[in-house]
Amino acid sequence: MAIRIDFTNMMAPGIPGGITEAEWASAAEKFADAHMHVVAEHSAGTLGFLDLPDDQALHGQVTGFVKEVRARTGADRVTDVVVLGIGGSALGPIALRTSLRAPKWNELDDAGRGGWPKLHVLDNVDPVTIEALLARLDPQHALFVVISKSGGTAETMAQYMIIRQWLEHSVGPEGAKRRLVLVTDPQKGALRKIAKAEGITALDIPANVGGRFSVLTPVGLLPAALMGVDTSALLDGAAEVRTRSASKELAKNIAGAYAVLQWLSDTAHGRHIHVLMPYSDPLRDMADWFVQLWAESLGKHRVPGDDGVGPTPFGALGATDQHSKVQLFMEGPMDKTISFIAVEEGGKDIEIPRLHADIPELAYLGGHHLGELLDVERRATAGALARRGRPNLTISIDRVDAHHVGGLMMLLEMATVYAGALYGVDPMNQPGVELGKNFTYAIMGRPDAEQARQEWNLLPKPDPRYSA
Amino acid sequence: MAIRIDFTNMMAPGIPGGITEAEWASAAEKFADAHMHVVAEHSAGTLGFLDLPDDQALHGQVTGFVKEVRARTGADRVTDVVVLGIGGSALGPIALRTSLRAPKWNELDDAGRGGWPKLHVLDNVDPVTIEALLARLDPQHALFVVISKSGGTAETMAQYMIIRQWLEHSVGPEGAKRRLVLVTDPQKGALRKIAKAEGITALDIPANVGGRFSVLTPVGLLPAALMGVDTSALLDGAAEVRTRSASKELAKNIAGAYAVLQWLSDTAHGRHIHVLMPYSDPLRDMADWFVQLWAESLGKHRVPGDDGVGPTPFGALGATDQHSKVQLFMEGPMDKTISFIAVEEGGKDIEIPRLHADIPELAYLGGHHLGELLDVERRATAGALARRGRPNLTISIDRVDAHHVGGLMMLLEMATVYAGALYGVDPMNQPGVELGKNFTYAIMGRPDAEQARQEWNLLPKPDPRYSA
Repeated sequence: MAIRIDFTNMMAPGIPGGITEAEWASAAEKFADAHMHVVAEHSAGTLGFLDLPDDQALHGQVTGFVKEVRARTGADRVTDVVVLGIGGSALGPIALRTSLRAPKWNELDDAGRGGWPKLHVLDNVDPVTIEALLARLDPQHALFVVISKSGGTAETMAQYMIIRQWLEHSVGPEGAKRRLVLVTDPQKGALRKIAKAEGITALDIPANVGGRFSVLTPVGLLPAALMGVDTSALLDGAAEVRTRSASKELAKNIAGAYAVLQWLSDTAHGRHIHVLMPYSDPLRDMADWFVQLWAESLGKHRVPGDDGVGPTPFGALGATDQHSKVQLFMEGPMDKTISFIAVEEGGKDIEIPRLHADIPELAYLGGHHLGELLDVERRATAGALARRGRPNLTISIDRVDAHHVGGLMMLLEMATVYAGALYGVDPMNQPGVELGKNFTYAIMGRPDAEQARQEWNLLPKPDPRYSA
Repeated sequence: MAIRIDFTNMMAPGIPGGITEAEWASAAEKFADAHMHVVAEHSAGTLGFLDLPDDQALHGQVTGFVKEVRARTGADRVTDVVVLGIGGSALGPIALRTSLRAPKWNELDDAGRGGWPKLHVLDNVDPVTIEALLARLDPQHALFVVISKSGGTAETMAQYMIIRQWLEHSVGPEGAKRRLVLVTDPQKGALRKIAKAEGITALDIPANVGGRFSVLTPVGLLPAALMGVDTSALLDGAAEVRTRSASKELAKNIAGAYAVLQWLSDTAHGRHIHVLMPYSDPLRDMADWFVQLWAESLGKHRVPGDDGVGPTPFGALGATDQHSKVQLFMEGPMDKTISFIAVEEGGKDIEIPRLHADIPELAYLGGHHLGELLDVERRATAGALARRGRPNLTISIDRVDAHHVGGLMMLLEMATVYAGALYGVDPMNQPGVELGKNFTYAIMGRPDAEQARQEWNLLPKPDPRYSA
């Protein structure tokens, strides 16, 4: 495997206002402290995602269940897998589908998918979407993967209750159980309780792995394996990057380097919007996955009542967003860093034919290749940003396969916990979403939400002066 | 139609640090100046998008061509429409497909689509994507819509050259021409030249309508009409909002109100990240369309060499992103405004069955409806943000149909030009992307790029000290 970061375009004096040699050297000391903190947290058992590449038992739950599913043939064959999940439970599976399966996987026929099932992800509660999906699914051939660590996620549980009834009406109570698999905490919560009481298969999310760090648990591995992805390669790639991100020496720690560059650019230079921009269609949903990881881990109070810290992660796609967001990156406020992802070996390329030789705006393209154009545009954009004093770096991977995708995800996860230590926040919690949840419970009439109901009633009411 | 904005949650003292009465009053004067500027620009002919709702001739080009395509039956029938376009040429068609056609349109069979074609959008040059699409398209039944205002967009022209050759090899030169329709400047550029020379159908993008404002030209209308969308209703909805956004009085101008609220929050209160968060799956791609509009129009220099202005637009989706981005909105830096989009009438709702009455975390959901949950979550999130002093507003529409979507798009387009006047930038240009294009031309060997080649050669080379 090769994953590399080139951050020449982050550094002064090449980039005026970039990171200086002195800042970088002093950040190495600061990083050693952050590293020590992360090691201590890991020893204390809070960073379970770091242990996932070695967790053969957990991986075995996935491969064992997939083997059982593959043995269902004929009238019992699974052609459509549906994930019920939200947040990390949806973003991980979606990113893996887009990056590691053929483009537009669900639009392909059975042969185009090599006999593997489609993967649908229900990540919202809009009735329009769910009704439309159920209208075209054959319950006989469907398998629903219900993912909630706590077992109490309102959106996922509402979906589950609807699906469960729909299944029972069409394939009967036992048929319904056989078409459900639950992915949840090993001990706690409603889903685990249901699994035990009713004998429904349930796979584990280790207690010390939070949703946005769960892609290498059954949350991501099960949907991926059901589509035929090589999950061992995902884990191996992650393990390799973990090794390369273990040192307390910044110069020998690739995830540390990414974290320090973003943190230093923000806190020392005001660049608090962190763009991730792969030049690769298969990686287009990786940016959304990263946005959750970075936003929910780092955006919070350091001490109760402070103004809050946390960079804003911003997803983009090259070359597409050169025609959407790059104008802002190039000439807007000096508040951004841009991280490109480059794929060195794009696979089979397509030659642009030599047509319209009489039209200069087109003729120059003839004889070049499409993947070459994509790569040239990335280099041109990085160069133009540098020329305009806009700091940027490039993460390069050899190719988009399970090994490199596993590595890339571990790189960004470890960078997140290092960044948490540098910013001085706990990357593992998300206290800010509790109030909204409690207001939802209050309005929906959950019995334990009396205090939230009182607080809700004190909010300002819509003021007719402030409407248009 | 009804489109309303409630901005109670933007205003002090309800929101500590919100916009004050005095600021709002004084902004009304500033808005009157901005309005005068926009009227003058319109009179000078630079804001062509404002005239599109009345342009029957242009709409007639679309309906006439669609009629001709619908008359192709049997061996000639069009089952797959493919847009070749990037930036506004892709984002508009994608947003219209997601909002106005059934969910996952391209995964439906012919009956599920009511006999209307699929719509594929090639918005990038990754060979993986194009190869996969061509492998499953039947050229006999395909129609390619090539969209480029200038006729020289490198990505789109490269796609076009590949598709043209592919078509000629499979259906012959005349068959190829019949399966191409070009959407471009009425007079200028390579595509117009090709259309004239070879007798290929071409539809107009008026010279004074730029890509990101082009959704109501054939750029958006043609793909929409080919999928069976009521384009007259789109235009009518846009016209209605245009009327409601025409007054110089801020209190009577809905697009003006949106623009002033965002601008004032940014320039007077440092809230320079502008989130757009629809609570509606059909509107999920509207945010990407808005991001281009706001970013490319407002992110630029006011005078050459200044540091650059422009808020960063940030797309989100409710309820989904409550599990991704809302933690950052709720507790991160005080640098954001959040604009929700609410849909008042969600259409047919789905009841959550009363299952698991013995499990309190689930039982409270039973008997409620899914659309109700979505709406409650939006209100709860807005309330929680307000309670935490985070300014937010809500745009409400009655339902997601062509009339309201046309209105919503006109609202955001007009808000963009008012915001341009308030920020003091020209919303119609995008000078920042030229350098990257010129570097691309230089590397690809376009003959007129000698100066860019020299500049390219002066850029810093990768420095091995700055790699990880």
